[in-house]
Amino acid sequence: MNKDKLAIEALRILSVEQITRANSGHPGIALGAAPILHTLYSKHLKVSPKHHQWINRDRFVMAAGHGSALLYALLYLADFGLDLDDLMQFRQFGSKTPGHPEVHITPGVDASSGPLGQGIAMATGMAIGEEYLRARFNRPELPIIDHYTFVLCGDGDLQEGVTQEAMSLAGHLGLSKLIVLFDSNDIQLDGKVANTNTEKASDKYPAMGWDYLFVSNGEDLDELSEALGIAKKNSKPTIIEIKTIIGFNSSVANTAKAHGSPLSQEEVQKMRAEFGGEAFSVPTEVWGYYQKNIVDSGKAQFEKWQQLWYRYQAEYPHEAQQLQNLDHWEIDENWDRLFNFDEQYKKATRATSGEILNHLQTLHPGLIGGSADLSSSTKVKGIDGDFSKTKRLGRNLNFGVREHAMGAIANGLALHGGIRPFVGGFFVFSDYLKPAMRLSSLMDLPVIYIFTHDSIAVGEDGPTHQPIEQLSQLRSTPHLNVIRPADANETLVAWDVIMKTQNNPVALILTRQDVPNITNKKLANHLRQGAYVISPERKKLDGVFLASGSEVKLALDAQTELYKDGLDVRVVSMPSFYLFEKAEQAYQEQVIPKDVKTKVAIEMSDAVHYYRYLGDNGLLINIETFGQSAPAGKLLSHYGFTVDNVVRLFKECWQKNHSK
Amino acid sequence: MNKDKLAIEALRILSVEQITRANSGHPGIALGAAPILHTLYSKHLKVSPKHHQWINRDRFVMAAGHGSALLYALLYLADFGLDLDDLMQFRQFGSKTPGHPEVHITPGVDASSGPLGQGIAMATGMAIGEEYLRARFNRPELPIIDHYTFVLCGDGDLQEGVTQEAMSLAGHLGLSKLIVLFDSNDIQLDGKVANTNTEKASDKYPAMGWDYLFVSNGEDLDELSEALGIAKKNSKPTIIEIKTIIGFNSSVANTAKAHGSPLSQEEVQKMRAEFGGEAFSVPTEVWGYYQKNIVDSGKAQFEKWQQLWYRYQAEYPHEAQQLQNLDHWEIDENWDRLFNFDEQYKKATRATSGEILNHLQTLHPGLIGGSADLSSSTKVKGIDGDFSKTKRLGRNLNFGVREHAMGAIANGLALHGGIRPFVGGFFVFSDYLKPAMRLSSLMDLPVIYIFTHDSIAVGEDGPTHQPIEQLSQLRSTPHLNVIRPADANETLVAWDVIMKTQNNPVALILTRQDVPNITNKKLANHLRQGAYVISPERKKLDGVFLASGSEVKLALDAQTELYKDGLDVRVVSMPSFYLFEKAEQAYQEQVIPKDVKTKVAIEMSDAVHYYRYLGDNGLLINIETFGQSAPAGKLLSHYGFTVDNVVRLFKECWQKNHSK
Repeated sequence: MNKDKLAIEALRILSVEQITRANSGHPGIALGAAPILHTLYSKHLKVSPKHHQWINRDRFVMAAGHGSALLYALLYLADFGLDLDDLMQFRQFGSKTPGHPEVHITPGVDASSGPLGQGIAMATGMAIGEEYLRARFNRPELPIIDHYTFVLCGDGDLQEGVTQEAMSLAGHLGLSKLIVLFDSNDIQLDGKVANTNTEKASDKYPAMGWDYLFVSNGEDLDELSEALGIAKKNSKPTIIEIKTIIGFNSSVANTAKAHGSPLSQEEVQKMRAEFGGEAFSVPTEVWGYYQKNIVDSGKAQFEKWQQLWYRYQAEYPHEAQQLQNLDHWEIDENWDRLFNFDEQYKKATRATSGEILNHLQTLHPGLIGGSADLSSSTKVKGIDGDFSKTKRLGRNLNFGVREHAMGAIANGLALHGGIRPFVGGFFVFSDYLKPAMRLSSLMDLPVIYIFTHDSIAVGEDGPTHQPIEQLSQLRSTPHLNVIRPADANETLVAWDVIMKTQNNPVALILTRQDVPNITNKKLANHLRQGAYVISPERKKLDGVFLASGSEVKLALDAQTELYKDGLDVRVVSMPSFYLFEKAEQAYQEQVIPKDVKTKVAIEMSDAVHYYRYLGDNGLLINIETFGQSAPAGKLLSHYGFTVDNVVRLFKECWQKNHSK
Repeated sequence: MNKDKLAIEALRILSVEQITRANSGHPGIALGAAPILHTLYSKHLKVSPKHHQWINRDRFVMAAGHGSALLYALLYLADFGLDLDDLMQFRQFGSKTPGHPEVHITPGVDASSGPLGQGIAMATGMAIGEEYLRARFNRPELPIIDHYTFVLCGDGDLQEGVTQEAMSLAGHLGLSKLIVLFDSNDIQLDGKVANTNTEKASDKYPAMGWDYLFVSNGEDLDELSEALGIAKKNSKPTIIEIKTIIGFNSSVANTAKAHGSPLSQEEVQKMRAEFGGEAFSVPTEVWGYYQKNIVDSGKAQFEKWQQLWYRYQAEYPHEAQQLQNLDHWEIDENWDRLFNFDEQYKKATRATSGEILNHLQTLHPGLIGGSADLSSSTKVKGIDGDFSKTKRLGRNLNFGVREHAMGAIANGLALHGGIRPFVGGFFVFSDYLKPAMRLSSLMDLPVIYIFTHDSIAVGEDGPTHQPIEQLSQLRSTPHLNVIRPADANETLVAWDVIMKTQNNPVALILTRQDVPNITNKKLANHLRQGAYVISPERKKLDGVFLASGSEVKLALDAQTELYKDGLDVRVVSMPSFYLFEKAEQAYQEQVIPKDVKTKVAIEMSDAVHYYRYLGDNGLLINIETFGQSAPAGKLLSHYGFTVDNVVRLFKECWQKNHSK
């Protein structure tokens, strides 16, 4: 057996040994796609296992994340930092080898994957990031940014809409350094691919601006390697369809059973016996082969690049410094001095946010983003023109009506490094990108989501365009900081919070309609604690209003009216439950005292998260049905978001609590 | 001006008059696509305005829902039931002419639309419904089901992933009676389409199993009508790209400004002056033309069909009865007698549900559905084989890995009538179809969503596959009944609730792991009230456990342990917040008494909805972070879902409440 074949068989046996030992995992792809991963890593992928965070490495996304065991086998053999025990702990608690690849857990993993469709879209983001940084930082004879982005995907990935959105955009943008390796084995979980999909990939992807290559035999490494070579020289993104056999050479080869059921211990032992050696052992030749062709060659490539980088630092110290700082960009402490909103200031928070974002972009070259065909409405737009095939320095990503890919691409941009991505849309359509937002949260990526048109105050466009449950959805998503500012100053502070956030996504929720300025910079600064007393009671504490966004003004107006009637109420602005729940317990109880019975929350949403603070005697003024099409003022009054109604409901609640 | 041109101009002026009067709406598509809608309705669409619910009418989906004013103008002129005042009330509170079309509000509207991408996917569902019912009910020379499904879409629709998923499936299934009219005007909201999309539609859609036709001039009615004629005879689904000019003949023609900003009053008055007559008036010739070509010809077609139907009823009384009853299928009261789960019964609720669903399908011929490539895991599969090009009676929809289209197609099936659709997937991936679920809820469609693998007990597949926030998301969605049964009997009752639900979607949330049977039929029957006392306190009421799904057993075990320590606790099973909140207030307070301080809720999710019932002194045992990859048992213990930990936390809470 030649060394390539031997290495491939080693990958296969190590994969199924992990899976069968864990009694959990996906042998089908591991057995089928081993030659692809082997060929990619040993003959094409520019990575250095000892420098796995190297900014100019080729990126690799295992879109078919269920192929994790294969990836771990390779990362182990190529000395990325996994050891034998890690393989033995496949899918066990706290191990470096979780069920699907997780970027912060395993060295050499460039993206968390598993949810189908996300991988190709994240890779598209990585490829955009490379193009931008290359255009921005490279100098003649100093190509410090110059790498490919590879993806391994299966049939399922390509069926996902988010993939199709991303591929359509990648084709349009001519992302020539994006290469998709399509593990085409004609089988998916429910049976033959042909039972649900009979597209002609060879025609479809060229129509979308891609080159399509075909490898008729995935076991033929020359054919495979040649296709990879062609793809790398291409002027378009390339998809290589590679015919493989799911569960290759196993008892379940070429059947859906191979997908997700571990092989029996007997079968794995038999495979091991044929291969030779102890369980989990690998012949010296294989170690040597990978040492030479991945570890050493990668190190050589890294060192060659390092020479370039030293020259770059010498010749372009400013740019070198800038590039190094991009991921931890320290914004001028007084960046916000330009913005002073007086008492007369009255604009939609989306408009205020748009102005702030434009300014921030001039201060931070890594801020890149855009909207899903709504930039004129959301005010979320990159500067310096559209990023396009001919203009790689354009910082506006014109995503088209591709919300889901927008989110996943933002993840890819953040994963690449050097980019701080922001994206925008109507809040109700955050539904379309939720799977990508979940991955931002899971990967702790500082993606900036900006959602406007945040309530029934959208008005005439009607219920399809009016969010109700979206605030609850996002507030319930772990690690996601949802901020809904009440006015211009809170919006400004929110942006400062965003710029100082390094390790989790933020969703900024903004109004369509104008809102008056109700704070000053000092007061709004308390947004950092998530919630704060925006207007205290005067003498006694008869009750507390809790509200966020445009409803804070409503609470303030109700407070004024109630005072006239002898009820002395505090108003708490609550822009971020996430931050408030991180604040100290004592602060939380100081802002929302437990012993005040009449706590009334006001929010034009389902607003379920307020119940946590309302106790036995509080009241939630919310919306539990859908909106309607009508002018906003009419809707606010219909749904009870008027001073009169809020005053009335507060009094009812207060009387009930005090008649007991 | 010939009558066609005159009618088109009437549609245009009526559209912009509505929009400018409302000072809100989208003139661009109305002016551009008027010839398309005119040609479709007056020369091709088989509808009878006086019988707008006719089961055999051609369906029309205005996927580009922002073109509502144009649709209303046509429905007004074709006498579907809108009057002049309705047009004057465009986008006003309570009117029949909301901002985007809403199926339950306006006669002649076949689907609510507005969120881009949903329309083509819903139409795909309608076309599947037609194929199935046609195959099932037609008899020689009695084609009682035989109609087309038309869609009008814009560039934005085609960029959406959900559209691409649906079109891929429609092509695969050879839905030859599905016809997409693509209003191709080269402009979208953020500017030129070419700035974000340069696909070759003429190559792409044929590669996906569609025929592609091109109409070079949307103003040329002969060319348009000819293309429609060809499409109707086609053996594949057809997309007709029709070149139009957004904002045709207005001051903003051919610009993105035309999309969503009303024309000025002056401009509309000028257009009206050129057209002639008073504002909102229409020449007699146009009324006459539509009377003849839509109202009268539709009536004639309906009456011709009615003759067929009478013959059908006479010759096939059983089938006729069945067809008529499909939408209100009364299931045998004792359908569940087959299922008797004894004390030893222990299976995953997904498995129990799968058996029940299979049985129900034999009882109800309208039950059709499937999974997004997970039928072996979800146990959600249609009977009688795959629905395919050659087997239209197959009741399993093999959706492929196309979750989002699956949801939207289910909406289309339900909208068609005669079908009770069910769909299945992993719960965490409900994220992928949320936009479609929202539309099910908004349209009050009885779509059955079945989601399995409902918690961290998924185990080894890890955090990407473990739902956390999904229960909260769906519980917060209006009109959606989320049911998470605790055992086999609750699952059985849940299915009875589902079968009796006519006007809203249900999401059934099921375990991957085995759960013991903890109720009997009588007890589980209380699921109908949403929550109930599954195990009462014995003598005194020291506290209450609230739980759903697999955690109910945990609560029962903790109850037993606490009793040994002298604490007498009630356990409430809470499978459906939706139903519980519809139950009488007195019942609610009886089940969860307000005056019991120590209320402890247990759920392996974010579980925020329980706070509503926990008061000032309760405790929520939930998960506010992501899961991990490990065997389920290990995770349950790590995240604190063990009897010991629950007992400990209950005691802490109780002591805190009783030391005050």
